[in-house]
Amino acid sequence: MILSEFQTLLKKHKIEAYLVTRRNMFLTEDILPEENKIMEFTGFTGSAANLLVFQDKAVLFTDGRYEIQAKLETNPQQVKVECVKASDFFPWLNANCQNRKLKIHFNPWCWSAREYAAHSTDSSPAEFIADKKNLLGGLLSNNPVHVFPHEIEFCGIGSTEKISQIAKHLQSKNLKAYLFTAADSVSWLFNLRSNALPDTPVLRAYALVKDDGETTLFAENTDYENAVAFSQLPSYLKKFKKQNLGLDLRTTPQQIISFLSDDAYTHSADPVSAEKAIKNPIELQGIKNAHLRDAAAMCGFLCWLNDNWQGKTELDIVAKLRSFREKQSLFFSDSFPTIAGFGSNGAIVHYQPKPHTNLELKAGSMLLLDSGAQYFDGTTDITRTMAIGTPSADMVQDFTTVLKCHIALASAYFPEKTSGNALDAICRRNLWQQGKNYNHGTGHGVGCFLNVHEGPQNLSSGASYYPLQPNMVNSIEPGYYKENHYGIRIENLVYVDRVSDPNNDIPMLKFEYLTLVPIDKRLIDKYLLDDGEKIWLNSYHQTVYNKISPLVDDKVKNWLKDACSPI
Amino acid sequence: MILSEFQTLLKKHKIEAYLVTRRNMFLTEDILPEENKIMEFTGFTGSAANLLVFQDKAVLFTDGRYEIQAKLETNPQQVKVECVKASDFFPWLNANCQNRKLKIHFNPWCWSAREYAAHSTDSSPAEFIADKKNLLGGLLSNNPVHVFPHEIEFCGIGSTEKISQIAKHLQSKNLKAYLFTAADSVSWLFNLRSNALPDTPVLRAYALVKDDGETTLFAENTDYENAVAFSQLPSYLKKFKKQNLGLDLRTTPQQIISFLSDDAYTHSADPVSAEKAIKNPIELQGIKNAHLRDAAAMCGFLCWLNDNWQGKTELDIVAKLRSFREKQSLFFSDSFPTIAGFGSNGAIVHYQPKPHTNLELKAGSMLLLDSGAQYFDGTTDITRTMAIGTPSADMVQDFTTVLKCHIALASAYFPEKTSGNALDAICRRNLWQQGKNYNHGTGHGVGCFLNVHEGPQNLSSGASYYPLQPNMVNSIEPGYYKENHYGIRIENLVYVDRVSDPNNDIPMLKFEYLTLVPIDKRLIDKYLLDDGEKIWLNSYHQTVYNKISPLVDDKVKNWLKDACSPI
Repeated sequence: MILSEFQTLLKKHKIEAYLVTRRNMFLTEDILPEENKIMEFTGFTGSAANLLVFQDKAVLFTDGRYEIQAKLETNPQQVKVECVKASDFFPWLNANCQNRKLKIHFNPWCWSAREYAAHSTDSSPAEFIADKKNLLGGLLSNNPVHVFPHEIEFCGIGSTEKISQIAKHLQSKNLKAYLFTAADSVSWLFNLRSNALPDTPVLRAYALVKDDGETTLFAENTDYENAVAFSQLPSYLKKFKKQNLGLDLRTTPQQIISFLSDDAYTHSADPVSAEKAIKNPIELQGIKNAHLRDAAAMCGFLCWLNDNWQGKTELDIVAKLRSFREKQSLFFSDSFPTIAGFGSNGAIVHYQPKPHTNLELKAGSMLLLDSGAQYFDGTTDITRTMAIGTPSADMVQDFTTVLKCHIALASAYFPEKTSGNALDAICRRNLWQQGKNYNHGTGHGVGCFLNVHEGPQNLSSGASYYPLQPNMVNSIEPGYYKENHYGIRIENLVYVDRVSDPNNDIPMLKFEYLTLVPIDKRLIDKYLLDDGEKIWLNSYHQTVYNKISPLVDDKVKNWLKDACSPI
Repeated sequence: MILSEFQTLLKKHKIEAYLVTRRNMFLTEDILPEENKIMEFTGFTGSAANLLVFQDKAVLFTDGRYEIQAKLETNPQQVKVECVKASDFFPWLNANCQNRKLKIHFNPWCWSAREYAAHSTDSSPAEFIADKKNLLGGLLSNNPVHVFPHEIEFCGIGSTEKISQIAKHLQSKNLKAYLFTAADSVSWLFNLRSNALPDTPVLRAYALVKDDGETTLFAENTDYENAVAFSQLPSYLKKFKKQNLGLDLRTTPQQIISFLSDDAYTHSADPVSAEKAIKNPIELQGIKNAHLRDAAAMCGFLCWLNDNWQGKTELDIVAKLRSFREKQSLFFSDSFPTIAGFGSNGAIVHYQPKPHTNLELKAGSMLLLDSGAQYFDGTTDITRTMAIGTPSADMVQDFTTVLKCHIALASAYFPEKTSGNALDAICRRNLWQQGKNYNHGTGHGVGCFLNVHEGPQNLSSGASYYPLQPNMVNSIEPGYYKENHYGIRIENLVYVDRVSDPNNDIPMLKFEYLTLVPIDKRLIDKYLLDDGEKIWLNSYHQTVYNKISPLVDDKVKNWLKDACSPI
């Protein structure tokens, strides 16, 4: 369907406006291209967007990161681009809708109950009406999906035990049952994965778990024998009453609420979300192992790049890096589309090389390379920025500052119960002192052979309070982006560990690194590092050499020895 | 009234429980002793408390800062002490009230509408019932209060102009009127002050401001001619309807809501609170001037202390410091009761010397001195920690760490729109690296000849988002407390200023210091400071000497020269 056809539909049904979200019924950014109605209607490929379609126009809301891209990708005669936080379209409505309540239809599968409630207050400039005719068409791709178990040697705890814990949790909360609507929670709870998405092995399913441990898994187009069709949901949900069904309004589509009587459910935070963030010992060991292999692949690639960058393009880099990873055992897929940004492309935070943007590497700049893989035993996510030829003095100074930011947070101790958002300024401080900043988060949680972005913890100041706890896995990824010139980012995954020091007044936590790949010394001005920072870097590189050199061939080992030598 | 008399009253009126807050109708901590019902009933003198009185027992809720003190001051046969956040008594109710809704009476003047609503949800373990019989008796002291103007040379903007701005604000919000219930907002808006409280020149009044600029000021027992009695409030409020009266539910007593019809009011953040936090140029100049005089007093005192500490007690220190301040022009009062904690008393964060705790200064420890003054042109708040005799190596190391914390935040640059709470970790980081921390906020806003603690901005991680803006005045006050040994705190007031550097990518803010008093170099291990920290300290001391030496006599000047010499 093209935009004008959808607008014809709106006219036919006398609908003045329709909110199109970039979502399916799982309410995350992870969707297939054929599920992306915003891309279908406007051509916009960014990951954060809402589209308001009127009979004679359309307004695309996306945030500042995507401003340039959105204007390039869309037709200005059809689509007006508004750069705000994508979900923050009320000010535009207030300014453009002449003081009357606009009637906006929406697909109730593609908006959470929490979002619907937040937008439906008395002071809202619009009235939101669930589209019962499903004018937008299919929600989930019809591709056949293969479901497979996440084996116990990797997941560590059987699904029977996990479900039994959830049943106890429900009993303690006086709930008869819980409806899990977050796909990664269901995948973790049942130790199931699938090939539905290219970079995330999540099984897109809902699950109903009762307080006696009985479970029902809802999914479609899969080869999983015990799955029940989504169309059966109403019959399963209608029997609940007196708030004895728990669900998380943040991940539950508004459509589900319409299947329930008013007093049937109560909001209760998804108990799997908190649990799976804290990796169990088997998961953590698997994640460490995955990072050793991923580092071996990265080091092989970096050694190759060192000798072979001339004449190569960003897309060559993406393919070559993938070939190194594919050779590693337990490799499943990339964990997200590789960002390989050379020179000025590196300054575009969410850049992915396309044939028409693909730059050839030339001496005198830097390559920003953000990539990761899904291994059966863990998920990786790493950014390195490499000198190509001789870098400028500005590049070296900015890279060194970003490194200081990275080290400041990576080496920080912090008290128990500290929230990730409270640590953000420790990371940014060195850039701030130079009047610089970066316009993205400082770090995110990471799943185990699951989503590369996972909550509930977060290292960004905009996030809400959630305490960091031992065995949580996070990224630390400060950066600096000089528009039209270059981009720098240094990202390691780390896990939270206890500080064991009997002299401490109070129990403290720290980060231990998982990622073990050299940081490009050609971009470091060692005279800008203090003693503590030099010690951190040399110690990190010593560990990298000790752990990775046994895993690579002699040529790579020689390169690694040089890359890891002390400054 | 003693506790048992009040419990007899409860029996007589068949009331099973009564919530006593440590408040009067202005809902702040600033109350007179005779207004403190919790002290009257239990003996507890701390500033944060709620008391649940049952017919046969009483439970005092206060936070961890006051745990020891509360147990010492109360009679365990009458009062059970529970250490939680004082307002967080639901878990105790849940655990102790056998799954039925307790009926708790409360004085609706002494609890905000927001607090009442937050405690009166479906899931609340209690039902809260406004006490219409006023069983607790008087709210405000009957002492006669003298009201006087805050002159234009100090406040900078006349009340007519301020009120006219508010009227415009009301028009823009479609409000007919606004009811100001925060005493410091009313004092600022009308440029009025009073002698009602010993350390805060606030006028305890409400004010109704209409969108045409007409005002009504509600106050009692004052010599202010135009004040209307609080008993007249219902007749002034009854005419509002259709949400055309604005008020701030956080500072408005629940009693006021009962004077209004349901649809009469709407919550709207107190517009004076945001406005008065950003000091106007006259106020800022006055605050700078007040700090020069306060520094002259402090330096005179510190020079005296240097020669005369032997044989002196904490209470002698309090009196002597006051005598130096009283000699300064435009002195009005202290800005809070002076904290003078020697040795182990310094480790008690909220310590105030009393005859039975009063320690004599002895060589080999430190004196923590937190004090401030109200001058007609500004309010000061400063903490210095001084060596008495020769300090131990631990003291020097801990003091130096606290100094590093102070400098880290005092010298930080940060982007516009950064919230104070996001900066907290920058201050604590150096202590955290040693497994140490401090159990209080990092800084607070400060009024101009008003409350020494003022919102809405705050430098503590627990606070909510509020952006720091140029000309806001804040304290920076990291500390370290070694129980039973010593306490350290280094507190300066600062104001927010713009960084003017054309090389900056984005507009940045910084802090400029207002407080100009030497930091005790005998407690600094210069080998623990990095180059940037040494430069900050020497530059600070140079400024102190340049600005304060002309204001003191030769003896003090000589002491100051030594105290300010470079390390």
